Amino acid sequence: MLPDDARIISVDDHVIEHPRVWLDRLPAKYQDRAPRIIRLEDGNDAWLYDGERSGNFALNAVAGKHPRDFGMDPRSYSDMRDGCHDVEARLKDMDIEGTWAQMCFPNMGGFAGSTFWRSKDKELAAACITAYNDFILDEWCAFNPERQIPLCMVPFWDVPAAVKEAERVAAKGAKSITFLEAPHRLGLPSYHTDHWDPLLKVCEEAELPLSVHFGSGGAPAGTAEDGDMFITIALFGLNSMMAMVDLLMSPVFYKFPTLKFVLAEGGIGWIPYLLERTDYSWERHRYWCKINAEQRPSELFDDHIFGCFVSDQTGLNERYQIGVNNILFESDYPHSDCNWPHTRKVLAEQLRDVPDDEARLIVEGNARRIFNFPG
Amino acid sequence: MLPDDARIISVDDHVIEHPRVWLDRLPAKYQDRAPRIIRLEDGNDAWLYDGERSGNFALNAVAGKHPRDFGMDPRSYSDMRDGCHDVEARLKDMDIEGTWAQMCFPNMGGFAGSTFWRSKDKELAAACITAYNDFILDEWCAFNPERQIPLCMVPFWDVPAAVKEAERVAAKGAKSITFLEAPHRLGLPSYHTDHWDPLLKVCEEAELPLSVHFGSGGAPAGTAEDGDMFITIALFGLNSMMAMVDLLMSPVFYKFPTLKFVLAEGGIGWIPYLLERTDYSWERHRYWCKINAEQRPSELFDDHIFGCFVSDQTGLNERYQIGVNNILFESDYPHSDCNWPHTRKVLAEQLRDVPDDEARLIVEGNARRIFNFPG
Repeated sequence: MLPDDARIISVDDHVIEHPRVWLDRLPAKYQDRAPRIIRLEDGNDAWLYDGERSGNFALNAVAGKHPRDFGMDPRSYSDMRDGCHDVEARLKDMDIEGTWAQMCFPNMGGFAGSTFWRSKDKELAAACITAYNDFILDEWCAFNPERQIPLCMVPFWDVPAAVKEAERVAAKGAKSITFLEAPHRLGLPSYHTDHWDPLLKVCEEAELPLSVHFGSGGAPAGTAEDGDMFITIALFGLNSMMAMVDLLMSPVFYKFPTLKFVLAEGGIGWIPYLLERTDYSWERHRYWCKINAEQRPSELFDDHIFGCFVSDQTGLNERYQIGVNNILFESDYPHSDCNWPHTRKVLAEQLRDVPDDEARLIVEGNARRIFNFPG
Repeated sequence: MLPDDARIISVDDHVIEHPRVWLDRLPAKYQDRAPRIIRLEDGNDAWLYDGERSGNFALNAVAGKHPRDFGMDPRSYSDMRDGCHDVEARLKDMDIEGTWAQMCFPNMGGFAGSTFWRSKDKELAAACITAYNDFILDEWCAFNPERQIPLCMVPFWDVPAAVKEAERVAAKGAKSITFLEAPHRLGLPSYHTDHWDPLLKVCEEAELPLSVHFGSGGAPAGTAEDGDMFITIALFGLNSMMAMVDLLMSPVFYKFPTLKFVLAEGGIGWIPYLLERTDYSWERHRYWCKINAEQRPSELFDDHIFGCFVSDQTGLNERYQIGVNNILFESDYPHSDCNWPHTRKVLAEQLRDVPDDEARLIVEGNARRIFNFPG
């Protein structure tokens, strides 16, 4: 059962950046091209950044709406809960849903800063990342450091610059770096190369787990025409599956034996199957494939990879096969997977057959340990 | 436990076509371009078809080899067990591994005949498919119809021709059609269109389940450089996951209420997670996505989709969440996943906690019912 005094920590929520995040922070020379909100003719809001319109809110800001009102149209700030973009209102919404602390991914910036990676002017892009990090550290999380866990971006297209930014935000109190689940799918070097080593080294030394959100390695697995968006949503977990196997087969955890990856929004119910399958394949193919032939993938998993769930009874039933220490909760506020305002109630139902000490780890203890966020 | 008298039926094995499959059957005008075996300079064998060298045996013909000897080099017929290509020897190998009956996918032809789909001369390609079907029906399976279940291809690039061939092989005793898990990934119309309806109608009427082998919808989920082949092998199941969600969200099962799909070599341990996830997503997105909003995906699954496993303790532990009636066994002989000669022993270990009546269904009864193959 979920104990009444357990303080739920969600490790995957989302901030809808308010319109002045970048305008307030970018140097004067970038003001003209700073990300800003424009009002469209239909009355909705959209981001304009370096001449390009990017993204909309839609399913990313639906907390409190009935699924009948879900859709892909852009929305305006006035059509979403204040908690999406206002940290004071956010904490009140967390009180309503029954969560104590949370870690937020960026929205306009992309899960790992990929919006800026795509922009042509990489100097401006790096400045935008610094500005976002200062926003999340100095404004959003500083409002109540006991209840907001800082997750920062790095300019991943430039490893020395990414190292510098990781060191800077670590010194300012960041608890995790949002990174790419599959860099090779963006045309960047894979985890099987040495390319990322300087950054991974800094993250290991500063005890910063890498939070890799599904979709941060490019488009999720798409399928066919009608119902395509739905199919993509149901298949979110496949990206995390690919990331898990790719990382377990890479040299990363041999080079960085205390580095941790957190797979956000991929679910957990598939983990026992995929660990069994990966071990099975490893038994057969370790001799001829260029992979580490000594340590069983499922053993590597225990120390290095952590799964997250919004709602996943299958995974909770199989928690001993996953490892009770490897499971984290996520609310996903204000995205369409979240159960706000019933977050705590839905979670308690899922934990009804889980012993109290295990439930405490899953909803709070693991997050405090993994993200070095003591209560 | 696996009862001693249970006759194991494997629904996913593979025939290595012998060198005369097409030479013996194609009309004289195609003899020059018929698929034939050529001896390479290094002493290995390879197929030559319509001027192109295609495929090799490698991991597809390793039954009985130690994993230390696995690899991607081509091999020769003399470097594989006779059971790969000789049905009499095959039955002896089945006796050794302890299986009673099996259904074989093509090798040179591709899982669903895709080798022929890629060839330029589609008239020759269709003739090759007819020849293969006659081989599998009249030669391979006719040798012992109680122990070989005929699985046939259709020229899927031409729906009227595919309908005709499905009718022809059904009349000759075919029990299943090998088809595409994701036609849209080959650039063909998806299951969300009406394109395939005439073929699906014939399959439904003739009680021919569609056997869709992972990889029949194009390349499996690839990843990065080193260890790439291993990662692909560990991720085989992802193709079946995509196919399952795609089919459940398509109109196919509403149009053809008794049609069945068998997902070969995708494993089963992920099914409870993905059904839960698909239902969860459907609850939220059925209002605005173009999908059927009435029937829960997991309910549709029960009557229409069947999972297969070589070795999957996770899935067997979760069998009630999958449905004991929806699980089929596969040996995968002579591919690299198979446990020959220990097939029955490995299976019995996996079934040690499964009640006898359920074990009987999983290893034999379900296959007999689904493929209309009475004992």
